[in-house]
Amino acid sequence: MHADVKSLIQEGADLTDHALESLIPSVDTVPASIHGAMRHSVFAGGKRLRPVLAMQAAVAIADALPKGIENLGAALEMLHTYSLIHDDLPALDNDDLRRGKPTCHKAFGEAIAILAGDALQTRAFEVLAGLQCPPAATVKIIGLIANAVGTVDGMIGGQVLDIESEHLKPTPELVEAIHRAKTGALIRVSVVSGGVYAGATAEDAARLDRFGRKAGLAFQIVDDVLDLTVDSAQLGKTAGKDQATEKATWPAVYGIEQSLRDAAQLIDEAFAALDPYGSRADGLKAVARYLVDRKN
Amino acid sequence: MHADVKSLIQEGADLTDHALESLIPSVDTVPASIHGAMRHSVFAGGKRLRPVLAMQAAVAIADALPKGIENLGAALEMLHTYSLIHDDLPALDNDDLRRGKPTCHKAFGEAIAILAGDALQTRAFEVLAGLQCPPAATVKIIGLIANAVGTVDGMIGGQVLDIESEHLKPTPELVEAIHRAKTGALIRVSVVSGGVYAGATAEDAARLDRFGRKAGLAFQIVDDVLDLTVDSAQLGKTAGKDQATEKATWPAVYGIEQSLRDAAQLIDEAFAALDPYGSRADGLKAVARYLVDRKN
Repeated sequence: MHADVKSLIQEGADLTDHALESLIPSVDTVPASIHGAMRHSVFAGGKRLRPVLAMQAAVAIADALPKGIENLGAALEMLHTYSLIHDDLPALDNDDLRRGKPTCHKAFGEAIAILAGDALQTRAFEVLAGLQCPPAATVKIIGLIANAVGTVDGMIGGQVLDIESEHLKPTPELVEAIHRAKTGALIRVSVVSGGVYAGATAEDAARLDRFGRKAGLAFQIVDDVLDLTVDSAQLGKTAGKDQATEKATWPAVYGIEQSLRDAAQLIDEAFAALDPYGSRADGLKAVARYLVDRKN
Repeated sequence: MHADVKSLIQEGADLTDHALESLIPSVDTVPASIHGAMRHSVFAGGKRLRPVLAMQAAVAIADALPKGIENLGAALEMLHTYSLIHDDLPALDNDDLRRGKPTCHKAFGEAIAILAGDALQTRAFEVLAGLQCPPAATVKIIGLIANAVGTVDGMIGGQVLDIESEHLKPTPELVEAIHRAKTGALIRVSVVSGGVYAGATAEDAARLDRFGRKAGLAFQIVDDVLDLTVDSAQLGKTAGKDQATEKATWPAVYGIEQSLRDAAQLIDEAFAALDPYGSRADGLKAVARYLVDRKN
């Protein structure tokens, strides 16, 4: 099983990388600096988990990988990368290191890093507008994704809550609200948009949404725990940073042991939402299981 | 004529303001700070020229203002405002004043200003995904707009060229490339997307594109001249800034007199593209004429 899920993830990551390679202008395209900066961060070793989740959600619906879905995956990855570039800026988390490499602003300066993040968001929506599904599905996907990266229970809203809650006492409600928005919303919409791309009905979309909500929270809890228990070299970024900046995290509220139990229970609940799909959902489940069991 | 165009612009601006008011979350919506920052910049007294151009282009095609086009206008204005917020940041133009008010980062801090710009871009695409035109037209509009605010001959690309060309000797080619991308592309796509919303054929879209390209360059030339000839109080922003930072501008290459002649000629050429629409294009022409004749 473990060898299987690794090759399944690798296959999805390769498809995504190939799409990203052709969708982001080359470093020879004027103006060169911004394309270099976009590529620096997009090809910094991300695991392409959101694209893989979108692909496996599509398989749960259509029983096969729909043609062209790698472009949806590439757009999701561009949005994820844009958020990392802006999070790392001096005015925000002020991080020098990301996945073991200099952050975008360290390598290209702050101005270009701000614009590279901006441009990745733009390019993501441009790529979405060119998806090979019916226009009504494309419009639906764009609306869902824009909502998930926006301010109201979306990625940017979560980032704002996160900044504002530093040095505040973390309550369970606050931690869950931050996680649901900051990282959960994009994971959830990755799953749902993959399903919509494959022709999901409203009922399918609601099931995938439930799966994505539970699983996304479980992934983030595991992330929080790893930040406390793994050193920087293994993590590829500055470990212990959440604790140093007094971020509102799950283990800060519940402790490490309870956090791991919560993650395991959330995954069980997430899997229940996929029961109607039988073995077609095996790939999606395997990827989710892999993500909560990972050690870095 | 002059009174007419003013009321036409005012009417379009009012429609746009009303749409923006309902489309941007209120300051009571959590997280409050970012919605306050978005509103601070969106309601800082912008003239809503891009929405008005979109509306009048739609009238040239459909002979009436199509239902719901104010949401397209609002999205264009959100994109314009996002670009101003990020341009003003310390790492970019480092401006304290915009339209006579503190810039977003001066009022809300750098972190929230970066995220408010991000969020306005996102919300723009979300609003576009909800447009009341057929899905195929919506997808077309989103693709065109994303392209126009992107890195290849688009708004962000122009911003990068602009930064990189500071303190370089401005050549005619460089100045035109910056203007065409940095401000021209969004103006051009405002006109074209207004037409597509109203049901423009490919031939109509090409004509509107030609009009938008010429008129957009003329507006920017006039902007450059005003920066040199009008004081800060009248301009509502720091005057003479282009010269102080040795920006590549039209008058820096051609002088003020020739710049004004070029703007007038570009407007004549732009108008020629609208000949097939007869009096239906009168509104669009009047707005363009008003923009090149303005004094601040």
